Amino acid sequence: MTLNDMLFGRPLRSSDEAGEKLGPVGGLSVFGLDALSSAAYGPEAGLTLLIPLAAAGIAYMLPITASIVILLTIVYISYRQTIEAYPGGGGSYTVARENLGESAGLLAAAALMIDYVLTAAVGISAGVGALVSAAPSLEPHTLAICLVILLLITLVNLRGARETGAVFIIPTYLFVGTLLGTLALGLFKTLASGGHPLPVVAPPPLHPQTAAVSIWLLLKAFSSGCTAMTGVEAVSNGVKAFREPVVKSAQRALTAIIALLIALLAGIAFLVRAYHIGATDPGTAGYQGVLSQLVAAVAGQGAFYYITVGSILLVLALSANTAFADFPRLCRAVAEDGFLPQGFATRGRRLVYSQGIWVLTVLCAFLLILFGGVTDRLIPLFAVGAFLAFTLSQGGMVAHWRRTGGKRARHSMLVNGLGAVATATTVVVVTVSKFVAGAWVTALLIPAIMIVMISIRRHYREVAAEIANTAPLDLTGLRNPLVVVPILFWNKIAQKGLRFALNLSAEVLALHIECEKDRGDMRQSWSRNVEEPARRAGLASPRLVVLSSPYRFVISPILDYVLELERNHPDRQIAVLIPELVERHWYHSFLHNQRAEWLRALLLAKCSQRTILVNVPWHLSA
Amino acid sequence: MTLNDMLFGRPLRSSDEAGEKLGPVGGLSVFGLDALSSAAYGPEAGLTLLIPLAAAGIAYMLPITASIVILLTIVYISYRQTIEAYPGGGGSYTVARENLGESAGLLAAAALMIDYVLTAAVGISAGVGALVSAAPSLEPHTLAICLVILLLITLVNLRGARETGAVFIIPTYLFVGTLLGTLALGLFKTLASGGHPLPVVAPPPLHPQTAAVSIWLLLKAFSSGCTAMTGVEAVSNGVKAFREPVVKSAQRALTAIIALLIALLAGIAFLVRAYHIGATDPGTAGYQGVLSQLVAAVAGQGAFYYITVGSILLVLALSANTAFADFPRLCRAVAEDGFLPQGFATRGRRLVYSQGIWVLTVLCAFLLILFGGVTDRLIPLFAVGAFLAFTLSQGGMVAHWRRTGGKRARHSMLVNGLGAVATATTVVVVTVSKFVAGAWVTALLIPAIMIVMISIRRHYREVAAEIANTAPLDLTGLRNPLVVVPILFWNKIAQKGLRFALNLSAEVLALHIECEKDRGDMRQSWSRNVEEPARRAGLASPRLVVLSSPYRFVISPILDYVLELERNHPDRQIAVLIPELVERHWYHSFLHNQRAEWLRALLLAKCSQRTILVNVPWHLSA
Repeated sequence: MTLNDMLFGRPLRSSDEAGEKLGPVGGLSVFGLDALSSAAYGPEAGLTLLIPLAAAGIAYMLPITASIVILLTIVYISYRQTIEAYPGGGGSYTVARENLGESAGLLAAAALMIDYVLTAAVGISAGVGALVSAAPSLEPHTLAICLVILLLITLVNLRGARETGAVFIIPTYLFVGTLLGTLALGLFKTLASGGHPLPVVAPPPLHPQTAAVSIWLLLKAFSSGCTAMTGVEAVSNGVKAFREPVVKSAQRALTAIIALLIALLAGIAFLVRAYHIGATDPGTAGYQGVLSQLVAAVAGQGAFYYITVGSILLVLALSANTAFADFPRLCRAVAEDGFLPQGFATRGRRLVYSQGIWVLTVLCAFLLILFGGVTDRLIPLFAVGAFLAFTLSQGGMVAHWRRTGGKRARHSMLVNGLGAVATATTVVVVTVSKFVAGAWVTALLIPAIMIVMISIRRHYREVAAEIANTAPLDLTGLRNPLVVVPILFWNKIAQKGLRFALNLSAEVLALHIECEKDRGDMRQSWSRNVEEPARRAGLASPRLVVLSSPYRFVISPILDYVLELERNHPDRQIAVLIPELVERHWYHSFLHNQRAEWLRALLLAKCSQRTILVNVPWHLSA
Repeated sequence: MTLNDMLFGRPLRSSDEAGEKLGPVGGLSVFGLDALSSAAYGPEAGLTLLIPLAAAGIAYMLPITASIVILLTIVYISYRQTIEAYPGGGGSYTVARENLGESAGLLAAAALMIDYVLTAAVGISAGVGALVSAAPSLEPHTLAICLVILLLITLVNLRGARETGAVFIIPTYLFVGTLLGTLALGLFKTLASGGHPLPVVAPPPLHPQTAAVSIWLLLKAFSSGCTAMTGVEAVSNGVKAFREPVVKSAQRALTAIIALLIALLAGIAFLVRAYHIGATDPGTAGYQGVLSQLVAAVAGQGAFYYITVGSILLVLALSANTAFADFPRLCRAVAEDGFLPQGFATRGRRLVYSQGIWVLTVLCAFLLILFGGVTDRLIPLFAVGAFLAFTLSQGGMVAHWRRTGGKRARHSMLVNGLGAVATATTVVVVTVSKFVAGAWVTALLIPAIMIVMISIRRHYREVAAEIANTAPLDLTGLRNPLVVVPILFWNKIAQKGLRFALNLSAEVLALHIECEKDRGDMRQSWSRNVEEPARRAGLASPRLVVLSSPYRFVISPILDYVLELERNHPDRQIAVLIPELVERHWYHSFLHNQRAEWLRALLLAKCSQRTILVNVPWHLSA
């Protein structure tokens, strides 16, 4: 068992594909973590904006949550339809590209890519942030913990979809179970007490009201609360990862995720009001998370409290996994259309799109390192991308139904149209209300990424046109090349090179670069060791060319000579033989100059199509 | 003018050598900085150990300095002789190796290498440390300032010996001038006042005496004071850098350096006593350097004070330059004997041994980064190396005189023998008194470096024996190789590869790796595009070999195939043609897989002498 096998698992055959598929249960933990974990920060984000309204703000949380739940339901129905219409994986990219055209597809892809990278970084750092505020002694190690979690998520994902599902099932169900338990207990207590339950641990008192209610404030609270909806598109993007019957499995997973999310959001909004729990100012001394207050109020600060809060932290940190499940699949789809490097469409040893996983890891690590593991400032950047993708996906489905027609098309079009309008409105609200705080970065990045993707496709098309060959093999005009053999001293390496050169062609030029101290030595050696035996064998001797190098450069005179040879023989191929020492141990490479590599790189970069490089290796036994 | 030219200067011809030589004046600043700057810390190091003796300690400074001056004089006379005997550069390495044998030479080389690396790091960080204690607001940038100075010294040295001399002349002479001025003024005042001068600014009062005088304490003070002697061997090591008459120029530079150093040491010891200046405890609040106290006492804290103290800091920071002048020369000498990689013996574009300079920069940067720019803890490590090298050099000279004989030999032998005994005693004292504080690291590193050097020479000898070829070119048994051409699709790249392969040999095997989706496509294309035209032209068609790859690997099946071919044809050469896309812009390399490079690296590593690699580049015009 090699190290590779231990870290990443045995390679899987292409035909092992079926065994790696997910059922609804595994799908929930692979694709649902992000959506479900957002129940842990969406309500809090909304309530934080309502702090100035005090008790009135908490009361407004119910209608705001209701709007979010309605929006979520619309998006859910719409994505159910998308899954059915695109069983091969219907992310926003595919749907938008097929129905609204290439630009719309690329817009959705760019928006989603940014969103996934941000989700992964913010998820990990939020989880670690919560952990660190619970155990302040870990604070100096924030970044290191973030990076370790990132690496673990990367490794699990590289091992394949099925193992990822298995690893994440326990935290997911622990999170859902404890949180639903809390909500059920709170609901029961509220009903039993006629709507006025007594908290076990009283939440901190609310601040006095400092602002009047305004539409703008409510809109901002709504758009912040909407972060609860990120991650919902994950299932539709990854349909292909599900087990047969594909569509049913994916739909079931989506239904379960949305139902749980709605239950959590509604329950939280209801209990927050019943227990008079408001957000506290993050960054001030008395800060306590909304869910933490809620669990303490409902169930007290016993073992259950710690398990619940612990599982929230864990799921937040692991919510990055949804990005790891979807980002590579998105990149694969975009790469198959030629807008991203082909490597993104290649499945690695465990049948996952390894390159996408690595790229996400690197980008995410870059963000984490740049911000020292505290990525709060990135939060305003990422709802824009998600809702833009929602909108394009819904709009695409409208066009899809119009095109396909049929009985249910009218009804489906209405549902998706409603979704499109709702999410488009949200995009505008979110962009405007968060523009200064950072959404402008997203607004700049999206077109930049689109331009890069379009240039990539143009390059691939040009290359394909350039190397395309419809004609059969042309066998006319075959002619042996001119062969250039750089020779340092007369030794076995030189002899091996010359012998191969003589196999290749009768026109062999041996090139010797002469520095001061060995003036003339080579000519003597050449006449004795090469010209004479060639004359005796009745063969044309290779010709010796001696170039002197006053600046002690060795590589550039060879390069210049080959370039001149190309100019003087415009109709010939030129083969440059590069004798190369191959060391038996890597550390021996420090003991020998790497001129062969440099020469090779320079010749490749500077010479024309007509120059071919031949490496004649000498494997040292020493 | 390229960037290279701007940073490092135009390349110099090998024949420009003479113009790069140094006279005694330039030599003083290139090779003398380290020795002279040690006047700034040697006396202080001695006095610090004498703090517990209070006024009595200051009195003991005179005999201690006298012993150091005597030792210095012995070493000086001895090195003058060495320069004369070894006009080609007589560092401790050369002298010890030629007269005491290889092991002694390597011992000296290892000791000196460690010493130079430490000198460079400690010099820079001491200078920056002094700067930072003068301007505490710079403290957070300590490491950055250290690295910038390191980089500047590196660049200046890469530009060549003459420019280095020119750059360092001003700080050197400013340092010597102001310090000698201070000493002269102080001497005058002392004599004028009958031995009891009145300080302009009174030095801080001495602490009460807390310990009795002991031999051990005086020995420790002596061995700390001996750090004033490091850097003295620099000139003898770099004789070759001097202008004709080489020996005279070098001797003059050495004489000037030693005379100045003795004047400084003696003057400091005398005035310290006259003005009752003791060391203050470093690291405590009232700390003030001995020289700073001295200048203030003699000349007051006016402009002169700041110029003098400033030039001390500058010279300390630049004293690293001596290491940069000598370390590459030492490595060159060792490399020419085959004990270090050959690159150390190659002169770069400006006729300096660039590789040694870069290696020193990297090691020095490593130490600076490791210790955050504060390398005080390294000081105990570095006198051992210097005195060990002194001893071996003196011992070598004794053997030299015994061997050469002659009139003056007896006298010379006596001088060098006295030097050897004196420095050997010092080695023992320094090692014992500093063993626990860090000298043990040096004691471990020296044999480790020696073992590495011996292994390197063994490797070079084995390689030389392996590739040596006294026989002339053997032209028997020339036979065309078997040619393997991996082919992905039928395109122009494949056609170019096949045409070159057919030039090379009639036995061409085209290798196609088949993944699932394109099953069978290649065979059809092959018969249409290759076999038919070959049949029509009456040539043997290249044979198509299709390998299926269930794990989607592409490179390893090719490698395995070539290895099998090697086994099945033990008497044939095998040429593997590697078609390779060459991108026009570096960033395009992200868009194409780098399989050609991987395949090349693996074939080089795994195949035998009989496999030769042919790169057929396709230069993209897109």
